[in-house]
Amino acid sequence: MKKVLCGVDIGGTKLSTALVDHDGNIIDKLIIYDHVDKPEDLFVEQVSLNIKTLFRKNQLEEEDVLGIGMGCAGHLRFRDGVMITTSNLKGFKNYPLRDAIQSNFKIPVILDNDANAQAFGEFNFGAGKGYNSMIFLTISTGIGAGIIINHKLYRGITGTAGEFGHTIVNPYKDLLCTCGNKGCLMSCACGMALPHLFKQKIEEGKETRMDITEDFDYSAVDGKFIKEGFDLGDPISKEIILDSGFYLGLGLYNIFQVFNPPLIVLGGGLLSWGDIYLEKIKKTFYEYARDMIFDPLDIVVSKIGTDAGVIGAASLPLE
Amino acid sequence: MKKVLCGVDIGGTKLSTALVDHDGNIIDKLIIYDHVDKPEDLFVEQVSLNIKTLFRKNQLEEEDVLGIGMGCAGHLRFRDGVMITTSNLKGFKNYPLRDAIQSNFKIPVILDNDANAQAFGEFNFGAGKGYNSMIFLTISTGIGAGIIINHKLYRGITGTAGEFGHTIVNPYKDLLCTCGNKGCLMSCACGMALPHLFKQKIEEGKETRMDITEDFDYSAVDGKFIKEGFDLGDPISKEIILDSGFYLGLGLYNIFQVFNPPLIVLGGGLLSWGDIYLEKIKKTFYEYARDMIFDPLDIVVSKIGTDAGVIGAASLPLE
Repeated sequence: MKKVLCGVDIGGTKLSTALVDHDGNIIDKLIIYDHVDKPEDLFVEQVSLNIKTLFRKNQLEEEDVLGIGMGCAGHLRFRDGVMITTSNLKGFKNYPLRDAIQSNFKIPVILDNDANAQAFGEFNFGAGKGYNSMIFLTISTGIGAGIIINHKLYRGITGTAGEFGHTIVNPYKDLLCTCGNKGCLMSCACGMALPHLFKQKIEEGKETRMDITEDFDYSAVDGKFIKEGFDLGDPISKEIILDSGFYLGLGLYNIFQVFNPPLIVLGGGLLSWGDIYLEKIKKTFYEYARDMIFDPLDIVVSKIGTDAGVIGAASLPLE
Repeated sequence: MKKVLCGVDIGGTKLSTALVDHDGNIIDKLIIYDHVDKPEDLFVEQVSLNIKTLFRKNQLEEEDVLGIGMGCAGHLRFRDGVMITTSNLKGFKNYPLRDAIQSNFKIPVILDNDANAQAFGEFNFGAGKGYNSMIFLTISTGIGAGIIINHKLYRGITGTAGEFGHTIVNPYKDLLCTCGNKGCLMSCACGMALPHLFKQKIEEGKETRMDITEDFDYSAVDGKFIKEGFDLGDPISKEIILDSGFYLGLGLYNIFQVFNPPLIVLGGGLLSWGDIYLEKIKKTFYEYARDMIFDPLDIVVSKIGTDAGVIGAASLPLE
């Protein structure tokens, strides 16, 4: 019998731990919401306890489990298992998180970027099944990505490769991204940019059907707000979806030119914008790529749903 | 004794064939200039004859040679050894060039993109020695590149990966690149763009010290012209060097975010612009990258000189 997989998804709101089988199905799951403010040592204790609780509840010994994969947003040095910086937790600057958890287990513990984990989950259990290589992009508040070449994650020297979201696609854009630069893909086309984009169009005098009072708090403009606006026939919301789709399509084209991959998988919350968004992404991509595609390239939507984070983390020991 | 390497560089002006040792030194070389107009079969005959002539002249039997590497500009399907399109030769559309040459030899024949060949030469014999991975960029009339990951060229499914020159870095630029798009790195920052950039600045009313008569033929503006202008204190020439350096630096930053590589090597004719150019490239890169570099990243100039093409081609059998 194949050994069970264990994943930990360290989010900014919830800490999910799950046991997963080799088809990517969740066997059991445990979620807590009070991990963010914990100091490093108590956090490590909590994570280890959650894992052990799941093992016990499912009558598993450690040796029944292949390994423990952990995904967390932020910069991390993969080879050392060290969190360099993360915005999901307080502290944890240059913290050796992998080894801290490893000290409580005999089976291998792997720590990777959350987008890498999701990409590898999608590759093993989702839209990537049957391919050798793929690029995964997740478009939500930010834009994360994972690069898979010949069945393995490509991470670069530190482990920070795949940051397509921070590549500059228009150096004369005005919004400053959290990375500190202007004109990166994230500042043009993800959830983080929506308040700015909406406000800009209002200030340009464009008409909206949304209820924008003088003291309107633009930080409330998120993917859901824009989707509601689009459904109500709001022209600004539609424009923002199309603008974002344009930049995403351009980003996909850049990925194509650099990686010439057989597959690009798109995931993340903004895909709930639906067909208009996906069609604009693809239309832009093909307008740029035209006659430069010589072998099949599939652009598809991710197949793993809400639990992509923890299922992806659980897939890491399969690498 | 190690077997000799043999390289063929199929250029748009000259066809170079060389025997190369394992330190990247040329043992013997043969250059002809009348290959471009030949039909496919006569071209194949000529290439094969050149190789055999060099073998004979150096008293080599085929089995004394490791393999024959060939580099050619254009799109090619690496796994099949097929030229899809090339602007260096007439015809050769979907032509199985590798197999045609292979039919005249028993030792392996490898056909790759000229930038990939140069990159692999630089990796084995030049600035890449001692590294596991690197990105190579050559900036001349166009921008070519090669990606080396764990001692091997990364080519993508067709073999067209690494086209950083065609990634879009400013969708609102006005010059149409030969790829058919506006705003790609090549249209902002390589030899091909120089006539347009120079003309644009003249039309903006900027002052120049160059002798620009009413019937001036702007197609004469090339890297050498700009270098002479800069040396004469021409402000437009200086501005173009700095603008190009800015976009190159931005391109390097995008490469950093995507690949997180330990090394980027820059080659090609425009580097003869000198320190002002290289410094602007690096300055722009570090302004974008700031505190996001967590492990050493070296940005260096290629070490292989004029014969980079044929030495690179000769290195291909080492892969």
